[in-house]
Amino acid sequence: MSRLEDALRETVEAVTKEIEHLLPSGEGLDQRLFEAMRYALLAGGKRLRPFLVMSSAGLFNVSKESALRVAVAVELVHTYSLVHDDLPAMDNDDLRRGKPTCHIKYDEATAILVGDALLTLAFEILGDKKTHSDPEVRCNLVTSLAGSAGAQGMVGGQAIDLAAENEDLDIGAIIRLQRLKTGELIAFSCTAGAILGHAPEPAHHALQGYAHDLGLAFQITDDLLDTLGDEADLGKRAGKDADLGKATFVSILGVDRAQEQASMLADQAVSHLDIFDEKADLLRDVARYVIERQN
Amino acid sequence: MSRLEDALRETVEAVTKEIEHLLPSGEGLDQRLFEAMRYALLAGGKRLRPFLVMSSAGLFNVSKESALRVAVAVELVHTYSLVHDDLPAMDNDDLRRGKPTCHIKYDEATAILVGDALLTLAFEILGDKKTHSDPEVRCNLVTSLAGSAGAQGMVGGQAIDLAAENEDLDIGAIIRLQRLKTGELIAFSCTAGAILGHAPEPAHHALQGYAHDLGLAFQITDDLLDTLGDEADLGKRAGKDADLGKATFVSILGVDRAQEQASMLADQAVSHLDIFDEKADLLRDVARYVIERQN
Repeated sequence: MSRLEDALRETVEAVTKEIEHLLPSGEGLDQRLFEAMRYALLAGGKRLRPFLVMSSAGLFNVSKESALRVAVAVELVHTYSLVHDDLPAMDNDDLRRGKPTCHIKYDEATAILVGDALLTLAFEILGDKKTHSDPEVRCNLVTSLAGSAGAQGMVGGQAIDLAAENEDLDIGAIIRLQRLKTGELIAFSCTAGAILGHAPEPAHHALQGYAHDLGLAFQITDDLLDTLGDEADLGKRAGKDADLGKATFVSILGVDRAQEQASMLADQAVSHLDIFDEKADLLRDVARYVIERQN
Repeated sequence: MSRLEDALRETVEAVTKEIEHLLPSGEGLDQRLFEAMRYALLAGGKRLRPFLVMSSAGLFNVSKESALRVAVAVELVHTYSLVHDDLPAMDNDDLRRGKPTCHIKYDEATAILVGDALLTLAFEILGDKKTHSDPEVRCNLVTSLAGSAGAQGMVGGQAIDLAAENEDLDIGAIIRLQRLKTGELIAFSCTAGAILGHAPEPAHHALQGYAHDLGLAFQITDDLLDTLGDEADLGKRAGKDADLGKATFVSILGVDRAQEQASMLADQAVSHLDIFDEKADLLRDVARYVIERQN
């Protein structure tokens, strides 16, 4: 897996540098806001979504600068969602990636504003000329990300997750919940390269199929790690869903079948990539990585 | 003022109809989110920002559909900012426009998600082909709105406002705070018509000058209403800033000088419109209205 590890490390470095470059800074009374934005963004993380953007862009000869800017936009949206989800009124988490969450390190009001500012900045970056010379491409990125992130995507998934605490979800309902809550943003990440590269429809379609299966494999693995994982590895509280009595893939399928299902989905994700040559090898590798990771 | 009143009423009706059209609806577990989004958006309000979009678009022969969609996008951003500002961790307000605020009517988690979803939807609307045939125009709308609404605009203003509770602001600092917190979104509303209509630079510039003065006149009047106003008229708690010991235009200038200042700024705003013919009369009228309103 060393090819993948090198590529992942390279993405983490490039994305971190680009985040430093794109974040606002200042000296006034708003300095605390800018600091908290940096804190939330630079607290580590695998940068899986940026990696998917970079890897899908790599299939279509997209310039590295374009891809990096979109990668950062996705990471801003992902980070905003974590900051808001961690709030006391939501999941009430004190720890994220082994560090105090944004509202613990700063305060609740600042954490709300950090999320708002990160989300807004993502769209500012995508709309900017520097992201792509073709404004039609930039508009497609904006509407596609907004669709994935909004009420009929990630935010809708989070709303269903909140409502689900009082409901007995079946496997179909959980699949829908997770497709919205995590799958949609992963799907945007995988198809962003196709948008940037004016890719033909079949390529776009293949990446969507890949993303769909990958997202589900990712979520099942998250549920497995939450059940079996080590808190020190996870950097956050484990076993939380079970404590809340929430239905998860593991609570419904059991550990063994959940593991089988994740493995099957990873294989299925890879099979969508058959139309691509060895340029897609990193995407093939990451499908395995997603189900074999320890955090 | 009947010409203005008719135009304001017409905007309220058209915007309300377009909001109903653009909001998602559904039957699943996410229904509560969609309901809460409608509640926040349809709780009344003067629709001042949409009116400024419609009026500025009227100067440049922009299609009504284009202008309405941008008007709704601005109102989504304005409403999201109110929903988040009202949260217990922020201003902790129970009443808005005479009705329970979103987190009182629903719950805190839902109110956070409502704000997130409204903000995201605004960008989805602006990026969509239906808003304008020229993708360059749509990108300009996206980046301009994001700049006005984000960490270096409205959200930054809100962060400074939070920090200001412990600071003794002078008049310059208050002007900056208010320019960010309310002025930037008003400025976007006034210049959106120029973006939509490919207006020449001097027209764009004139509208920016108008918006700057209008925004400040608006905020001084808000402070005056907060000091002198009737709670029943305001539909929210009065005298709150004074209770918090926050510096406002009124606490620094006194009532008489604040009134003079607002009036002077309204005149100055109107003077920026000299390059336009009678098509700009509604914008001229609204500058008076902004300082003479009772809520």
